[in-house]
Parts: sequence; C-alpha cells; structure tokens
Amino acid sequence: MGNELLYEGKAKKVFKVEGDESLVYIEYKDSLTAFNALKNGSFPNKGKINKEISVIIFKYLEKNGVNTHFISELSETTLVAHKVNIIPIEVVVRNIVAGSLSKKFSFKEGLPLKRPIVEFYYKNDILGDPFINDDHVLLFELMSEKDIADVKLKALKINELLKRFFLNAQLLLIDFKLEFGKTKNGQIILADEISPDCCRLWDKTSKEKMDKDRFRQDMGLVAEKYQEVLNRLKSLKI
Amino acid sequence: MGNELLYEGKAKKVFKVEGDESLVYIEYKDSLTAFNALKNGSFPNKGKINKEISVIIFKYLEKNGVNTHFISELSETTLVAHKVNIIPIEVVVRNIVAGSLSKKFSFKEGLPLKRPIVEFYYKNDILGDPFINDDHVLLFELMSEKDIADVKLKALKINELLKRFFLNAQLLLIDFKLEFGKTKNGQIILADEISPDCCRLWDKTSKEKMDKDRFRQDMGLVAEKYQEVLNRLKSLKI
Repeated sequence: MGNELLYEGKAKKVFKVEGDESLVYIEYKDSLTAFNALKNGSFPNKGKINKEISVIIFKYLEKNGVNTHFISELSETTLVAHKVNIIPIEVVVRNIVAGSLSKKFSFKEGLPLKRPIVEFYYKNDILGDPFINDDHVLLFELMSEKDIADVKLKALKINELLKRFFLNAQLLLIDFKLEFGKTKNGQIILADEISPDCCRLWDKTSKEKMDKDRFRQDMGLVAEKYQEVLNRLKSLKI
Repeated sequence: MGNELLYEGKAKKVFKVEGDESLVYIEYKDSLTAFNALKNGSFPNKGKINKEISVIIFKYLEKNGVNTHFISELSETTLVAHKVNIIPIEVVVRNIVAGSLSKKFSFKEGLPLKRPIVEFYYKNDILGDPFINDDHVLLFELMSEKDIADVKLKALKINELLKRFFLNAQLLLIDFKLEFGKTKNGQIILADEISPDCCRLWDKTSKEKMDKDRFRQDMGLVAEKYQEVLNRLKSLKI
C-alpha cells in the first residue's frame, strides 16, 4: 500500500486515505506480542484471521446499535474505518476470573463473577499500562465524567451482545479489552479490533483456551485455535 | 486494661467495653510498621502522640460536621469510641504527588495535582492491600453504590477541612489514608486514626517530611517530628 503510514502498533498499521481526512485504512499484521511486548511472535495469516473475526463482530455490533469505526473491507488484511482520536485507555470487561484478576485477588481461574466488571488501564507502554480509576482518568484529562459514564455503559452493552454471540459459537467470553475513539464531532465509537488477541475465549464444553493465552503460556496450536474461532463465527447468522 | 481484646492491629488494640456493646476502647501502641509490616519499629510515646493528634483532629472534624467514631479520652494512650464494623477499604486522598502515585506514573514527588483524587485499596494483608476500583468494591460487596458515593464525598470534605487545618500549622497535607466504619444503624462514620502514620505531612516552607516516610526511608528524627506535628496542632485554636 503506497499510502502514508500514520501509526504502527504491535498488531496493526494505520494508513492515511488520500482525499478523505475522515477515513483511515487499518492493516492487520501477522505479529503477536504479549507481556507489554516482551514476548514476540507471529504466524502466517494471523492478520487475515483477526481482520475477518473483527469484521464479523463489528457488523454484528453495528446491527445491534453499537457504533464502531468499521466501514468496509478493502483487502484480505485491511479495512476502511472512520478516523478517530483513540482514547488512551484499555477498557477491560470481565465475566469470569482469569489473568491479572486471578493473580491480584488469588481467585481461581474460571470462577464466574456475580456481575461483569469494567476496569480502566492507562495505555502507556513505558509505565506498563497501569490500572487506574475514574479519578486518574479525570486528573490526566483522558475523558470527562460524562464520557466515562458513556464508555462504561457502552462496554457493558457490548459485553452482553458479545457474550450471547460467542455462546452461539460454543465459546465462553471470559474477558476482553476494548478501545474507544472520538470522531471529529465528538462522538465516542468503538475502535481498534475484537479478536482472540484481546478476548479470552474458552470452548464452552471442554474449557479449552482459544485465544492469545495459548501464545502467552506456550500452549501451542495458536494459529489453529484462532482459525477455529473464525470458522465458528462464520457459521453464525448475524 | 483488663477488658477483653477484640482486635489487635499493627498500631492499635481494640477492647470491649463491659456493659455497653455500642462502645469500644482503642489503645494506641508504640509500634510502627511499613511496607505491609515487612519493616517494624517503635518509639516511646508514639502511641500517646498519635492518640493526641487523632483526638485533636477528630474534635476539629466533629466541630465541622464530620461524624467520627471518637467519643472521649480514657487515658494517655486510650480513647472511647463508637463500635463500628470497619469497611475493609483504605480510602486514600491525594493532593500532591508522593509515594505510590509517584512510582506508578513516573511523576516527580511534590508535584501538586490539579484536583484531589480518591483511591480505594482493599484492606487485605495477604494480597498486599491491592488498589481496586468501584466495580471491585461492588463485586466483593464491600460497599453499595450509594455508600461508595457517600464515602467519596466524605473523604473529599475531610480533605478540604484537613488541608486548611494543617496549613494553619504550617504543614502541607500531601496525601492521607482514611478508614470508615458502619454503626449498628447503618450510618457511615470516620474511624481508625488520623496521625503522621497515615498522613504525609511536609513543612510548608522547608518541605521537610514530618511523617512515617521518615521511618520508611530511614531518615531519622521520627519521634521528634511526630512530636513537632503534635506541638504545632496543639497551638491551634479549634
């Protein structure tokens, strides 16, 4: 792609769209990182798979009233999206104990939570993406009080929709990370991606992990399980 | 004191009051701990000094409309207080960067915050008192949504009152930790203590530390500076 590169992240590149400042191209890369990029890897077709999974989910969410940055597909690994200013907060929603929640509170992985919880992490690689609360968000002027309430509501709505969607594919949505962005007119919409890179997904019956934890924990069959998530979602009617 | 010991913490003992289930005696100990009790110390009269400082502050807060557990003084190191169920949350209010806020966000110690912030830490020695957000408080059923709002408002009000009070004693209130408790009728009142053990206090002009950081950081003159805080507060009119 000859377009100007605006930003390159760990798993995606964002390019300028000539002639339309309100759009960007987002290319999904084959690379895979974990532990704040201390662990690096990749597998063929990873970008393509994650792009396809994200597109299916963005379409499903849009159909159910959630505004996302997704507009259309451009190629196997690239989509066209609304250009947004990303809010530098990782919004994590949890349904079942895993990962840092398990470590922090000595909870057994797999324990269902009585209610979904939302956590904010300040996107900052140097600081290691620290866990923050609403007062830190306000102090750092990352969001207004109104925006915080809006983002929490949106995150919980997306959670309800995704839980149901993945369950139809025999997958448990353990937890996931969202990123939101602001459009030029100040609207907050869902951005980034939704894929096994940022969702913990377990097979409903076997409880087998089908997400990036396979890479984090050197479990093998990473590509195969990402592909299986895609296959299962493809078989669903949206 | 021959009364039944109900609870012994790092710096205080709580005793039963015979014949009145709604009261307790609270004895301030000479011991001093830091880093989740990995560092231990003590100095003579520390309990007496902290009790006197706490009493002065409780009286000042009560006079200004803040309900506390303090009722009266019993002896040099002991006071009579309302019996409460302590909410197992350390409520931290910060005005100026120091301690963990400095480490977490690579902020320079001494930087004034644009607005005071409130943080919750789950009181649990085994877990190391982890930093939590409102959703964790609700998940663990430590407080209701209404109680969270109530505690935050109270903490900010206490902050405004204490900032002013300490400033009259030529002391900057950097940050501090509060604990609240619920009375039998469900009212939330300020409990625990307010002393250089749980307040960071700097001399307004020299910026000299006058609090437990002297002990944490092996700066010496711990007893002397605690005594000076008491002397300065004693000279104020409440």
